[in-house]
Amino acid sequence: MDLSEIRKMIDEIDDQLIELICRRMDCSLKVAEYKAANNLPVLSQQRENQILEKVKSRCEQYRAGYGSPASVVFAAVMDASRGLQYSRMDSGAELKAKLLSAKKSLIPPNKARVVCQGVPGAYSGEAASALFPGSSPGFVDTFADVFAAVEKGQADYGILPVENSSSGSVHEVYDLIIKHRFYIAAAAEIRVNHCLLAVPGAGISDLSTVYSHPQALAQCAELISSLNLEARSYANTAAAARMVAESGDKTIGAIASAAAAKLYGLTILKQNIQSLENNSTRFIAISRDLTIPQDADKISLIFALPHVTGSLYRTLSRFAVTGLNLTKLESRPSRSGSFEYLFYLDFEGSLNSPETLNLICALSEELPTFSFIGNYRELGTV
Amino acid sequence: MDLSEIRKMIDEIDDQLIELICRRMDCSLKVAEYKAANNLPVLSQQRENQILEKVKSRCEQYRAGYGSPASVVFAAVMDASRGLQYSRMDSGAELKAKLLSAKKSLIPPNKARVVCQGVPGAYSGEAASALFPGSSPGFVDTFADVFAAVEKGQADYGILPVENSSSGSVHEVYDLIIKHRFYIAAAAEIRVNHCLLAVPGAGISDLSTVYSHPQALAQCAELISSLNLEARSYANTAAAARMVAESGDKTIGAIASAAAAKLYGLTILKQNIQSLENNSTRFIAISRDLTIPQDADKISLIFALPHVTGSLYRTLSRFAVTGLNLTKLESRPSRSGSFEYLFYLDFEGSLNSPETLNLICALSEELPTFSFIGNYRELGTV
Repeated sequence: MDLSEIRKMIDEIDDQLIELICRRMDCSLKVAEYKAANNLPVLSQQRENQILEKVKSRCEQYRAGYGSPASVVFAAVMDASRGLQYSRMDSGAELKAKLLSAKKSLIPPNKARVVCQGVPGAYSGEAASALFPGSSPGFVDTFADVFAAVEKGQADYGILPVENSSSGSVHEVYDLIIKHRFYIAAAAEIRVNHCLLAVPGAGISDLSTVYSHPQALAQCAELISSLNLEARSYANTAAAARMVAESGDKTIGAIASAAAAKLYGLTILKQNIQSLENNSTRFIAISRDLTIPQDADKISLIFALPHVTGSLYRTLSRFAVTGLNLTKLESRPSRSGSFEYLFYLDFEGSLNSPETLNLICALSEELPTFSFIGNYRELGTV
Repeated sequence: MDLSEIRKMIDEIDDQLIELICRRMDCSLKVAEYKAANNLPVLSQQRENQILEKVKSRCEQYRAGYGSPASVVFAAVMDASRGLQYSRMDSGAELKAKLLSAKKSLIPPNKARVVCQGVPGAYSGEAASALFPGSSPGFVDTFADVFAAVEKGQADYGILPVENSSSGSVHEVYDLIIKHRFYIAAAAEIRVNHCLLAVPGAGISDLSTVYSHPQALAQCAELISSLNLEARSYANTAAAARMVAESGDKTIGAIASAAAAKLYGLTILKQNIQSLENNSTRFIAISRDLTIPQDADKISLIFALPHVTGSLYRTLSRFAVTGLNLTKLESRPSRSGSFEYLFYLDFEGSLNSPETLNLICALSEELPTFSFIGNYRELGTV
């Protein structure tokens, strides 16, 4: 048989498959109507498992090796049906009411009270200015202090780093979001531009020692070694700049941002001294109350899945069916010690889309651990 | 209609679907035979797109809203067929030959020359002892230095942290693996147990200042504040311990591991002082040559996918079809600036399984960017 003959056979089979799958979706919608009328849950795990078992054994009987691929196909059939059922039902009613009533506008940027971790001149301060132009952020010591300030109502928004392009995600911040049941209200990516700073009047040849956060020192190791400087670590980049400024010592320098140089009256001896180009950090603004701006274009979720074959695959099928594009997916072994994985998932979307709203409400009913943590506007790299 | 009647209709449809899907897989295998005989690639993106377009428009015509779920189902049908085709073909021949010829045993632990980042007493040293008992690791300054030492043949294995339970993945290490085309030869999880250390004879009440890596200081913030100590950051935990030991000063302490205390002759004043329980870091051993031990139980991959709806979903279907369990999945925007995402994926498996070997070789042919970075033994938490 040549290729076109086989393909003709496949096309004929596909025509029949199309017909059957459409009829099966009709039946699924009837099931949904029946369940809605009788207050039954959409998902019947027992029934699904029975069907998958039947498919697997029949197909394996038909030909060895067919059981597993065929049952994955049938899982897709049932997941697609389920998505369709939820789209016609009022599931996750509690979450839906909450999402729909979320205030549609943020506090005007210039009136927002914003808190950052670190000291003035830190990169988080740049993120605050990008997200809330006109605001003057306060600074506290730790990530936990940022959450505490927002919890107590001392600030409307807290600015926190969630991911750096070379050092990765900051799990601690996600843990605190879950602990406080806070939301993401906005996000921006800040380009890291490390500068070599010294007191006015000092030149590169005067320096013998340079202070900064260990990560910044590592990122600038090439320059430090080429200038034959001794590297000493400090709590953070801006604090190192402040210390150098206060010392008045011409033999010590700091690695920090241009903003820190300006703030503490230091001279920029060299810009962009990190070895990797395109180093950037993504910052989020967290808030106590859920607020969804009209131009929100990104949604963040955190959920847990059991550690069984295909559990993530089947959950992602729902996003594929709804035509959504993921922008972040990250697994993390669950702290609870059970055989579960926690996932951070971001995707492009808005709750203004009824399909997206329905998907989120459906997942909140289906998954044992599920948190919607915001629908917000993502600023590009600043 | 009541539920049992609708379900009976669904069962009848399913019986026909089972038959058709099996017959369609028969055809797929015939296509595979034809393509193998005529040296044609398995994937014909154009043909797949045509089929998906047809399905989408026909089903949408049948009933509004059916197009998208039906095309996801058909994508699953085609992905399952493709998996089946690859299982019968000799695809990815170059990679397959390389994987099959990889040495099956590691250098005996007690003879391995191992290099770590940091100074003696660092947690990476504990990882080295867990993975290569009997070896005495050397220490270098940076992650890049570890790779350089292995590249030059000065060491057989390099020990590197890849993920901490509170601070997340270390992207820099993955970047260096790709840059050097190295492999993961082994992995272990090390429990972080921070101790408060001081020179012999000093008690807690003598201390006024404590030195450590900023992350360790942050993790022990509660104890530091309850003891009213001043926290000062240092390049790493073990270096802080060494400095305290060399100073002989009873008023300064260090936060570091019990191993560091022993090595530098310091007294442990308090154990397990971090605020979070179950804080641990996963370390890997990297090697220049691919070696796969007989008891390997984990496989790591890095690959890129285009930023289009469902691209990850469809790739994961292949793992589901093969019955594999993922243990890590993490996306990362590609450095190249194009609209691509890079994924780190770990799963439980061994190349001794022909299905797993075939899957990896198939993906290496299908995906534009794909790196197999090791099949190794994962030690539990040490």
